Amino acid sequence: MIIVFTGNGKGKTTAALGQAIRALGQGKKVLVIQFIKGPWISGEDKFAKKIKNLRIIKTGKGFVKILGDKLPFKKHRASAQEGLQLAKKSIASKKYDLIILDEINNAVDLKLLKASAVLKIIKFLPEKTDLILTGRNAPKSLIRIADLVTEMKEIKHPFQKNKKSARAGIEF
Amino acid sequence: MIIVFTGNGKGKTTAALGQAIRALGQGKKVLVIQFIKGPWISGEDKFAKKIKNLRIIKTGKGFVKILGDKLPFKKHRASAQEGLQLAKKSIASKKYDLIILDEINNAVDLKLLKASAVLKIIKFLPEKTDLILTGRNAPKSLIRIADLVTEMKEIKHPFQKNKKSARAGIEF
Repeated sequence: MIIVFTGNGKGKTTAALGQAIRALGQGKKVLVIQFIKGPWISGEDKFAKKIKNLRIIKTGKGFVKILGDKLPFKKHRASAQEGLQLAKKSIASKKYDLIILDEINNAVDLKLLKASAVLKIIKFLPEKTDLILTGRNAPKSLIRIADLVTEMKEIKHPFQKNKKSARAGIEF
Repeated sequence: MIIVFTGNGKGKTTAALGQAIRALGQGKKVLVIQFIKGPWISGEDKFAKKIKNLRIIKTGKGFVKILGDKLPFKKHRASAQEGLQLAKKSIASKKYDLIILDEINNAVDLKLLKASAVLKIIKFLPEKTDLILTGRNAPKSLIRIADLVTEMKEIKHPFQKNKKSARAGIEF
Protein backbone atom coordinates (compact mmCIF):
# COMPACT_ATOMS: atom_id res chain seq x y z
CA MET A 1 0.00 0.00 0.00
CA ILE A 2 1.33 3.43 -0.98
CA ILE A 3 0.33 6.27 1.33
CA VAL A 4 0.99 9.98 0.77
CA PHE A 5 0.73 12.63 3.49
CA THR A 6 1.01 16.06 1.91
CA GLY A 7 -0.23 19.63 2.40
CA ASN A 8 1.03 22.71 4.25
CA GLY A 9 -0.26 21.73 7.69
CA LYS A 10 1.37 20.10 10.67
CA GLY A 11 0.95 16.36 11.09
CA LYS A 12 2.53 14.74 8.02
CA THR A 13 5.68 13.37 9.61
CA THR A 14 3.89 12.65 12.88
CA ALA A 15 1.10 10.75 11.06
CA ALA A 16 3.82 8.63 9.46
CA LEU A 17 5.43 8.08 12.87
CA GLY A 18 2.02 7.11 14.27
CA GLN A 19 1.72 4.51 11.51
CA ALA A 20 5.13 3.29 12.64
CA ILE A 21 3.78 2.76 16.19
CA ARG A 22 0.86 0.77 14.81
CA ALA A 23 3.12 -1.35 12.66
CA LEU A 24 5.62 -1.93 15.50
CA GLY A 25 2.75 -2.95 17.77
CA GLN A 26 1.74 -5.54 15.19
CA GLY A 27 5.29 -6.93 15.25
CA LYS A 28 6.42 -5.33 12.01
CA LYS A 29 9.76 -3.84 11.01
CA VAL A 30 9.94 -0.15 10.20
CA LEU A 31 12.52 1.98 8.44
CA VAL A 32 12.33 5.77 8.30
CA ILE A 33 14.56 7.63 5.84
CA GLN A 34 14.50 11.35 6.46
CA PHE A 35 15.16 13.65 3.53
CA ILE A 36 15.84 17.37 4.03
CA LYS A 37 15.86 17.15 7.83
CA GLY A 38 19.24 18.06 9.26
CA PRO A 39 21.39 16.12 11.70
CA TRP A 40 19.89 17.59 14.87
CA ILE A 41 18.43 15.06 17.31
CA SER A 42 14.65 14.95 17.54
CA GLY A 43 12.33 13.17 19.94
CA GLU A 44 11.75 10.40 17.43
CA ASP A 45 15.50 9.82 17.08
CA LYS A 46 15.96 9.39 20.79
CA PHE A 47 12.94 7.15 20.89
CA ALA A 48 14.07 4.96 17.99
CA LYS A 49 17.33 4.17 19.74
CA LYS A 50 15.41 2.26 22.38
CA ILE A 51 13.05 0.47 20.04
CA LYS A 52 13.91 -2.76 18.31
CA ASN A 53 12.49 -2.94 14.79
CA LEU A 54 12.50 0.85 14.31
CA ARG A 55 15.35 2.47 12.41
CA ILE A 56 15.59 6.14 11.51
CA ILE A 57 18.23 7.26 9.03
CA LYS A 58 18.84 10.88 8.14
CA THR A 59 20.17 11.68 4.73
CA GLY A 60 19.29 15.35 4.62
CA LYS A 61 21.55 18.31 5.21
CA GLY A 62 18.95 20.51 6.86
CA PHE A 63 16.84 23.33 5.50
CA VAL A 64 17.26 24.14 1.83
CA LYS A 65 17.59 27.79 0.86
CA ILE A 66 15.85 29.04 4.00
CA LEU A 67 16.74 29.88 7.60
CA GLY A 68 20.34 30.79 6.82
CA ASP A 69 21.18 27.74 4.71
CA LYS A 70 24.47 28.40 2.88
CA LEU A 71 25.23 24.87 1.69
CA PRO A 72 25.72 24.64 -2.10
CA PHE A 73 22.61 23.28 -3.81
CA LYS A 74 24.70 20.46 -5.30
CA LYS A 75 25.42 19.09 -1.84
CA HIS A 76 21.75 19.07 -0.93
CA ARG A 77 21.06 17.28 -4.18
CA ALA A 78 23.79 14.72 -3.60
CA SER A 79 22.46 13.86 -0.15
CA ALA A 80 18.89 13.54 -1.45
CA GLN A 81 20.18 11.19 -4.17
CA GLU A 82 21.93 9.19 -1.48
CA GLY A 83 18.63 8.94 0.40
CA LEU A 84 16.88 7.72 -2.73
CA GLN A 85 19.50 5.05 -3.36
CA LEU A 86 19.13 3.90 0.24
CA ALA A 87 15.35 3.77 -0.22
CA LYS A 88 15.80 1.71 -3.37
CA LYS A 89 18.08 -0.77 -1.61
CA SER A 90 15.78 -0.99 1.42
CA ILE A 91 12.77 -1.71 -0.78
CA ALA A 92 14.71 -4.36 -2.68
CA SER A 93 15.97 -5.98 0.54
CA LYS A 94 12.39 -6.93 1.55
CA LYS A 95 13.55 -6.56 5.16
CA TYR A 96 10.96 -3.96 6.14
CA ASP A 97 7.19 -4.10 6.45
CA LEU A 98 6.85 -0.33 6.50
CA ILE A 99 9.20 2.18 4.89
CA ILE A 100 8.68 5.89 5.48
CA LEU A 101 10.32 8.36 3.10
CA ASP A 102 9.96 11.45 5.22
CA GLU A 103 9.84 14.79 3.40
CA ILE A 104 10.71 13.17 0.11
CA ASN A 105 7.93 15.23 -1.53
CA ASN A 106 9.73 18.42 -0.49
CA ALA A 107 12.93 17.02 -1.97
CA VAL A 108 11.10 16.65 -5.30
CA ASP A 109 9.47 20.06 -4.94
CA LEU A 110 12.88 21.65 -4.31
CA LYS A 111 14.27 19.85 -7.39
CA LEU A 112 16.68 17.76 -5.35
CA LEU A 113 15.05 14.67 -6.83
CA LYS A 114 13.02 13.95 -9.96
CA ALA A 115 9.47 12.71 -9.43
CA SER A 116 10.11 10.09 -12.10
CA ALA A 117 13.09 8.74 -10.15
CA VAL A 118 10.91 8.35 -7.05
CA LEU A 119 8.18 6.57 -9.03
CA LYS A 120 10.78 4.25 -10.48
CA ILE A 121 11.89 2.85 -7.13
CA ILE A 122 8.26 2.45 -6.00
CA LYS A 123 7.68 0.03 -8.86
CA PHE A 124 9.78 -2.50 -6.99
CA LEU A 125 7.74 -2.30 -3.78
CA PRO A 126 6.89 -5.83 -2.56
CA GLU A 127 3.16 -6.48 -2.01
CA LYS A 128 3.71 -7.03 1.73
CA THR A 129 5.53 -3.71 2.24
CA ASP A 130 3.75 -0.46 3.00
CA LEU A 131 5.34 2.78 1.85
CA ILE A 132 4.59 6.25 3.20
CA LEU A 133 5.82 9.38 1.44
CA THR A 134 5.49 12.66 3.29
CA GLY A 135 6.06 16.31 2.53
CA ARG A 136 4.23 19.25 1.07
CA ASN A 137 3.52 19.64 -2.66
CA ALA A 138 3.49 15.93 -3.48
CA PRO A 139 3.92 15.53 -7.25
CA LYS A 140 0.71 14.75 -9.17
CA SER A 141 2.27 11.66 -10.69
CA LEU A 142 2.77 10.26 -7.18
CA ILE A 143 -0.79 11.06 -6.09
CA ARG A 144 -2.04 9.26 -9.18
CA ILE A 145 -0.37 5.96 -8.24
CA ALA A 146 -0.91 6.17 -4.46
CA ASP A 147 -3.59 4.09 -2.71
CA LEU A 148 -4.25 6.61 0.05
CA VAL A 149 -3.62 10.34 0.05
CA THR A 150 -4.37 12.82 2.83
CA GLU A 151 -3.79 16.54 2.54
CA MET A 152 -2.83 18.06 5.87
CA LYS A 153 -4.24 21.56 5.58
CA GLU A 154 -3.11 24.29 7.92
CA ILE A 155 -6.08 25.96 9.58
CA LYS A 156 -4.11 27.56 12.40
CA HIS A 157 -0.46 27.47 13.49
CA PRO A 158 1.11 29.16 16.51
CA PHE A 159 4.04 30.41 14.39
CA GLN A 160 1.49 32.39 12.37
CA LYS A 161 0.69 34.49 15.36
CA ASN A 162 4.18 34.30 16.82
CA LYS A 163 2.72 33.17 20.09
CA LYS A 164 5.21 30.48 20.91
CA SER A 165 8.44 29.15 19.53
CA ALA A 166 9.27 25.53 18.65
CA ARG A 167 8.62 23.27 21.61
CA ALA A 168 10.60 20.10 22.36
CA GLY A 169 8.42 17.02 21.99
CA ILE A 170 5.96 18.87 19.78
CA GLU A 171 7.89 20.44 16.90
CA PHE A 172 10.88 18.08 17.02
CA MET B 1 -0.46 24.13 23.71
CA ILE B 2 -3.81 22.94 22.36
CA ILE B 3 -3.66 21.04 19.08
CA VAL B 4 -6.63 19.89 17.00
CA PHE B 5 -6.43 17.30 14.24
CA THR B 6 -9.71 17.21 12.37
CA GLY B 7 -11.09 16.54 8.88
CA ASN B 8 -12.37 13.49 7.01
CA GLY B 9 -8.98 12.11 5.97
CA LYS B 10 -6.74 9.45 7.43
CA GLY B 11 -3.93 10.55 9.74
CA LYS B 12 -5.59 12.27 12.71
CA THR B 13 -5.08 9.57 15.33
CA THR B 14 -1.74 8.57 13.84
CA ALA B 15 -0.51 12.19 13.86
CA ALA B 16 -1.39 12.30 17.56
CA LEU B 17 0.45 9.02 18.13
CA GLY B 18 3.45 10.44 16.26
CA GLN B 19 3.42 13.41 18.64
CA ALA B 20 3.42 10.83 21.42
CA ILE B 21 6.62 9.29 20.02
CA ARG B 22 8.26 12.71 19.91
CA ALA B 23 7.21 13.48 23.46
CA LEU B 24 8.32 10.07 24.75
CA GLY B 25 11.68 10.54 23.04
CA GLN B 26 12.07 13.83 24.91
CA GLY B 27 11.44 11.96 28.19
CA LYS B 28 7.84 13.10 28.61
CA LYS B 29 4.81 11.28 29.95
CA VAL B 30 1.90 10.62 27.64
CA LEU B 31 -1.71 9.62 28.22
CA VAL B 32 -4.08 8.68 25.43
CA ILE B 33 -7.81 8.50 26.16
CA GLN B 34 -9.71 6.94 23.30
CA PHE B 35 -13.32 7.93 22.83
CA ILE B 36 -15.63 6.00 20.47
CA LYS B 37 -13.04 3.33 19.67
CA GLY B 38 -14.14 -0.08 20.86
CA PRO B 39 -12.31 -2.59 23.00
CA TRP B 40 -10.50 -4.37 20.16
CA ILE B 41 -6.73 -4.45 20.37
CA SER B 42 -4.87 -2.21 17.95
CA GLY B 43 -1.18 -1.94 17.10
CA GLU B 44 -0.81 1.07 19.36
CA ASP B 45 -2.33 -0.85 22.29
CA LYS B 46 0.15 -3.68 21.92
CA PHE B 47 2.94 -1.17 21.57
CA ALA B 48 1.93 0.88 24.63
CA LYS B 49 2.14 -2.20 26.84
CA LYS B 50 5.88 -2.28 26.30
CA ILE B 51 6.51 1.43 26.66
CA LYS B 52 7.03 3.11 29.98
CA ASN B 53 5.49 6.59 30.10
CA LEU B 54 2.80 5.76 27.51
CA ARG B 55 -0.67 4.83 28.68
CA ILE B 56 -3.65 4.22 26.43
CA ILE B 57 -7.11 4.00 27.98
CA LYS B 58 -10.22 3.17 26.00
CA THR B 59 -13.51 4.53 27.16
CA GLY B 60 -15.49 4.04 23.98
CA LYS B 61 -17.93 1.29 23.17
CA GLY B 62 -17.12 1.06 19.50
CA PHE B 63 -18.84 2.50 16.45
CA VAL B 64 -21.91 4.62 17.09
CA LYS B 65 -24.97 4.00 14.93
CA ILE B 66 -22.97 2.46 12.10
CA LEU B 67 -21.56 -0.94 11.14
CA GLY B 68 -24.19 -2.91 13.01
CA ASP B 69 -24.01 -0.98 16.29
CA LYS B 70 -27.02 -1.94 18.41
CA LEU B 71 -25.93 -0.49 21.75
CA PRO B 72 -28.44 2.00 23.22
CA PHE B 73 -27.33 5.59 22.61
CA LYS B 74 -27.46 6.20 26.37
CA LYS B 75 -24.69 3.68 26.94
CA HIS B 76 -22.48 5.33 24.35
CA ARG B 77 -23.15 8.65 26.02
CA ALA B 78 -22.37 7.31 29.47
CA SER B 79 -19.02 5.93 28.34
CA ALA B 80 -18.11 9.21 26.61
CA GLN B 81 -18.96 11.06 29.83
CA GLU B 82 -16.73 8.64 31.69
CA GLY B 83 -13.92 9.44 29.27
CA LEU B 84 -14.41 13.14 29.80
CA GLN B 85 -14.32 12.77 33.57
CA LEU B 86 -11.10 10.78 33.24
CA ALA B 87 -9.65 13.53 31.01
CA LYS B 88 -10.60 16.12 33.60
CA LYS B 89 -8.89 14.18 36.39
CA SER B 90 -5.81 13.53 34.29
CA ILE B 91 -5.47 17.22 33.43
CA ALA B 92 -5.89 18.18 37.08
CA SER B 93 -3.33 15.56 38.21
CA LYS B 94 -0.53 17.37 36.33
CA LYS B 95 1.06 13.94 35.87
CA TYR B 96 1.20 14.06 32.08
CA ASP B 97 3.13 16.24 29.65
CA LEU B 98 0.95 15.26 26.72
CA ILE B 99 -2.67 14.19 26.85
CA ILE B 100 -4.38 12.95 23.71
CA LEU B 101 -8.18 12.88 23.61
CA ASP B 102 -8.58 10.64 20.62
CA GLU B 103 -11.81 11.00 18.60
CA ILE B 104 -13.30 13.32 21.18
CA ASN B 105 -14.43 15.59 18.32
CA ASN B 106 -16.53 12.75 16.93
CA ALA B 107 -18.01 12.25 20.38
CA VAL B 108 -19.14 15.89 20.33
CA ASP B 109 -20.33 15.60 16.73
CA LEU B 110 -22.40 12.53 17.64
CA LYS B 111 -23.87 14.41 20.60
CA LEU B 112 -22.32 12.08 23.15
CA LEU B 113 -20.63 15.13 24.70
CA LYS B 114 -21.31 18.84 24.70
CA ALA B 115 -18.64 21.08 23.17
CA SER B 116 -18.99 23.41 26.15
CA ALA B 117 -18.20 20.55 28.55
CA VAL B 118 -15.00 19.79 26.61
CA LEU B 119 -13.98 23.47 26.64
CA LYS B 120 -14.60 23.60 30.36
CA ILE B 121 -12.04 20.93 31.22
CA ILE B 122 -9.47 22.52 28.86
CA LYS B 123 -9.56 25.66 30.97
CA PHE B 124 -7.67 23.79 33.67
CA LEU B 125 -4.84 22.70 31.36
CA PRO B 126 -1.47 23.42 33.03
CA GLU B 127 0.93 25.56 30.94
CA LYS B 128 3.44 22.69 30.72
CA THR B 129 0.90 20.18 29.39
CA ASP B 130 0.12 19.77 25.71
CA LEU B 131 -3.33 18.60 24.71
CA ILE B 132 -4.29 17.04 21.39
CA LEU B 133 -7.93 16.57 20.40
CA THR B 134 -8.64 14.45 17.35
CA GLY B 135 -11.66 13.51 15.29
CA ARG B 136 -13.67 14.81 12.37
CA ASN B 137 -15.99 17.80 12.60
CA ALA B 138 -14.20 19.56 15.45
CA PRO B 139 -16.58 22.12 16.99
CA LYS B 140 -15.94 25.73 15.97
CA SER B 141 -15.66 26.82 19.59
CA LEU B 142 -12.73 24.41 20.00
CA ILE B 143 -10.98 25.59 16.84
CA ARG B 144 -11.30 29.14 18.13
CA ILE B 145 -9.35 28.45 21.34
CA ALA B 146 -6.81 26.01 19.85
CA ASP B 147 -3.19 27.06 19.17
CA LEU B 148 -2.69 24.72 16.23
CA VAL B 149 -5.32 23.19 13.95
CA THR B 150 -4.76 20.90 10.98
CA GLU B 151 -7.51 19.61 8.74
CA MET B 152 -6.72 16.15 7.42
CA LYS B 153 -8.49 16.17 4.08
CA GLU B 154 -9.18 12.94 2.23
CA ILE B 155 -7.84 13.10 -1.30
CA LYS B 156 -7.87 9.35 -1.92
CA HIS B 157 -8.71 6.31 0.21
CA PRO B 158 -8.50 2.63 -0.77
CA PHE B 159 -11.94 1.93 0.76
CA GLN B 160 -13.36 4.37 -1.80
CA LYS B 161 -12.37 2.08 -4.60
CA ASN B 162 -12.84 -1.11 -2.59
CA LYS B 163 -9.37 -2.20 -3.55
CA LYS B 164 -8.25 -3.49 -0.19
CA SER B 165 -9.75 -4.12 3.21
CA ALA B 166 -8.44 -2.90 6.57
CA ARG B 167 -4.81 -3.93 7.01
CA ALA B 168 -3.20 -4.72 10.38
CA GLY B 169 -0.58 -2.14 11.27
CA ILE B 170 -2.10 0.42 8.94
CA GLU B 171 -5.79 0.81 9.79
CA PHE B 172 -5.54 -0.45 13.38
